Amino acid sequence: MKSAILTIGTEILFGQIVNTNAAYLSSKLNDLGIDVMYHYTVGDNAGRLENMLDMILEECDLIVTTGGLGPTQDDLTKETVAKYMNDSLVLHKESMDKIELFFKRTNKEMTPNNIKQAYVPSRSKVLQNDFGSAPGFIVSKEKKHIICLPGPPSEMKPMFENYVIPILKEKTDDVILYKFIKTIGIGESLLETELMDLIDGQEDPTIATYAKEGEAYIRITSKRKKYEEAEKAIDDVVEKINLRISDYIYAYEDLSLTEIVVKILTEKNLTLSSAESCTGGLFADSFISIAGSSKYFKSAIVSYSNEAKVKLLGVNKDILDKNGAVSENVAIEMVKGLSNITESDICISVTGLCGPDAGDEKEPVGTVFIALKYKDDVKCEKYMFRNVGRNSMRRRCVLTMTKMIYDTIGDLYEK
Amino acid sequence: MKSAILTIGTEILFGQIVNTNAAYLSSKLNDLGIDVMYHYTVGDNAGRLENMLDMILEECDLIVTTGGLGPTQDDLTKETVAKYMNDSLVLHKESMDKIELFFKRTNKEMTPNNIKQAYVPSRSKVLQNDFGSAPGFIVSKEKKHIICLPGPPSEMKPMFENYVIPILKEKTDDVILYKFIKTIGIGESLLETELMDLIDGQEDPTIATYAKEGEAYIRITSKRKKYEEAEKAIDDVVEKINLRISDYIYAYEDLSLTEIVVKILTEKNLTLSSAESCTGGLFADSFISIAGSSKYFKSAIVSYSNEAKVKLLGVNKDILDKNGAVSENVAIEMVKGLSNITESDICISVTGLCGPDAGDEKEPVGTVFIALKYKDDVKCEKYMFRNVGRNSMRRRCVLTMTKMIYDTIGDLYEK
Repeated sequence: MKSAILTIGTEILFGQIVNTNAAYLSSKLNDLGIDVMYHYTVGDNAGRLENMLDMILEECDLIVTTGGLGPTQDDLTKETVAKYMNDSLVLHKESMDKIELFFKRTNKEMTPNNIKQAYVPSRSKVLQNDFGSAPGFIVSKEKKHIICLPGPPSEMKPMFENYVIPILKEKTDDVILYKFIKTIGIGESLLETELMDLIDGQEDPTIATYAKEGEAYIRITSKRKKYEEAEKAIDDVVEKINLRISDYIYAYEDLSLTEIVVKILTEKNLTLSSAESCTGGLFADSFISIAGSSKYFKSAIVSYSNEAKVKLLGVNKDILDKNGAVSENVAIEMVKGLSNITESDICISVTGLCGPDAGDEKEPVGTVFIALKYKDDVKCEKYMFRNVGRNSMRRRCVLTMTKMIYDTIGDLYEK
Repeated sequence: MKSAILTIGTEILFGQIVNTNAAYLSSKLNDLGIDVMYHYTVGDNAGRLENMLDMILEECDLIVTTGGLGPTQDDLTKETVAKYMNDSLVLHKESMDKIELFFKRTNKEMTPNNIKQAYVPSRSKVLQNDFGSAPGFIVSKEKKHIICLPGPPSEMKPMFENYVIPILKEKTDDVILYKFIKTIGIGESLLETELMDLIDGQEDPTIATYAKEGEAYIRITSKRKKYEEAEKAIDDVVEKINLRISDYIYAYEDLSLTEIVVKILTEKNLTLSSAESCTGGLFADSFISIAGSSKYFKSAIVSYSNEAKVKLLGVNKDILDKNGAVSENVAIEMVKGLSNITESDICISVTGLCGPDAGDEKEPVGTVFIALKYKDDVKCEKYMFRNVGRNSMRRRCVLTMTKMIYDTIGDLYEK
């Protein structure tokens, strides 16, 4: 089944809100084995909306719309879809009762335009809204379907999950299965070169490579009649890929490198602390943003100033003065100081120049030293990052720190 | 001028990434007085892409595309656009030199598919990529323009701002001017109610209100033939708004509250340090992510564990045991300890429960204590945030901390 997602709302075309609905719906439709061919966004304009419905249904069997079901004048999805389907709007009593109840319960005045929300196309299947007042609906004609959902994600998502998915499951025969292979340390172009013949020869499963800041991942997708067939087809491809690039693979599931490191730390009862200069707390944040961090994260010291490096971490002032803050010796002093103070199993430090100004340091912007202490071993690595902008470089530092931890304790992890 | 934004990439149709580029470009094009009529997304498929170019240019004068300029086989934006424009691809020497230099400098192997990135349509105007390897370009035919930009926002945004905006400005006659009024402490719906008659009566300038996590702002826009006319029209509206809600306004320019605080700290030579528990470095990061932080930011101590609170900040263990980590007394101990260690002008501490688990604490998820020390004054405030999810709550904590600093030193700022 071929589908398109149609987002309706002038606010999207003004750039006032990011269209997260389209990504959510795409992911869900793909999971159901329904191909998403296009995303479209159109403003609150009946003529353009009608043209778009017509154009999309020439190629696709299913349109999922979001937005334009509300009470105000510029909400015109229902009116336009009904007209396009040669249908008319009728009052849906259950929805009307719900709206009246809502206003009664909250003691708010119900303005007449709210009644508009309870109207639906006469031949539609109504989709109940458990988290708002405007119902959704499905209309069909000659094996073509239009599903209209409300715009707010908090209303749209539960409506889709509870009422639309069961209906769509009945309409599709295929099973779509996909698996991820996550890599680090290999660029997307090299990755593709290594896998070129597999990618070229693909029909099913399909192999796609994606680049993310500093990482690359592979998605292998199979669409079959049976789950077992899809799984076997994917596993065969995973094995082939594994033979070629296993050194770069850190996971065979859709987890970030940070999540993998968290898994290892938690499973092996290891504790972690950081001493951060240029990353300014971003490393600590990348771990603490994942729930459960109190189990392994002890502390972070953001020693942004030289004074803080001496006072908080006990960095030797002579070493600091002689080598400059951005140096191997200072990174090592930082990690040793951190280890003394926190007694964590893994201590990591970073000092670098992320720009935009190089200050009075000798090193160019992009120079970063990362030191790691695990058990009694201390190692320090120097990186020269391309100057891709201050915060992008800071994120790159954090990823590299995480990679260094993974390289140190990754063999404790059963991939 | 009528425009459309065309996002190219199968990963978007899989729902793997949210299309933030479309919102960014919409906002920027609207600023330039260019109407955005549609957003479209199409996969990495030459046939469908070509059909789409054709369809869009029937109605629009300008297409801005993002994505599909990379080195791999599925990147086919250039090939398709060149073909559609009856043009062919030629090697762009400057871009080639840049790519070679990058591989040389980073000691990485340059695979042949990287050369592909240096090819551009022969009659195009090349747009330099300062943060990546694939250049963008503009092709025009009979007053219709296609602007092709790379997909990664970190490359696309600076390219648009530095090279595309100056070109588009020449193509538009009108002056579009806008000013921002930033507020905190007033909800968007109340804000709209206060300004309802101004918003209803608007033609030019237009007034729009926007809500962001914990903040709300107003944007006043005027489109005139002359700069002076637009400016006068906007200033008149700003004055009217000011008379009604001046208490809530923290800036008359497009700066975040953090940026305003940075301005005050820098101008008044004040230093800042933080002691963070639940925010885990996110507060420090919100300041250090802004260039120039070494001038005022001294250090942050992320004392995530109780042990760290005692050891790094000198929190009294009895007070900690008696009151629990999430308590007024511990927040105050933390900020006093931080002040002793760092001797910063402003010290701020935070301890709270951001979930998802409440652990064995007595307080519910959402309880947060923030303490601030400025000169000899120490104050502590308790907040009960709605449980909106761990990271959303952590961001809310950081904003509240920043607001507390602004309330303390904001009178030093000339709005």
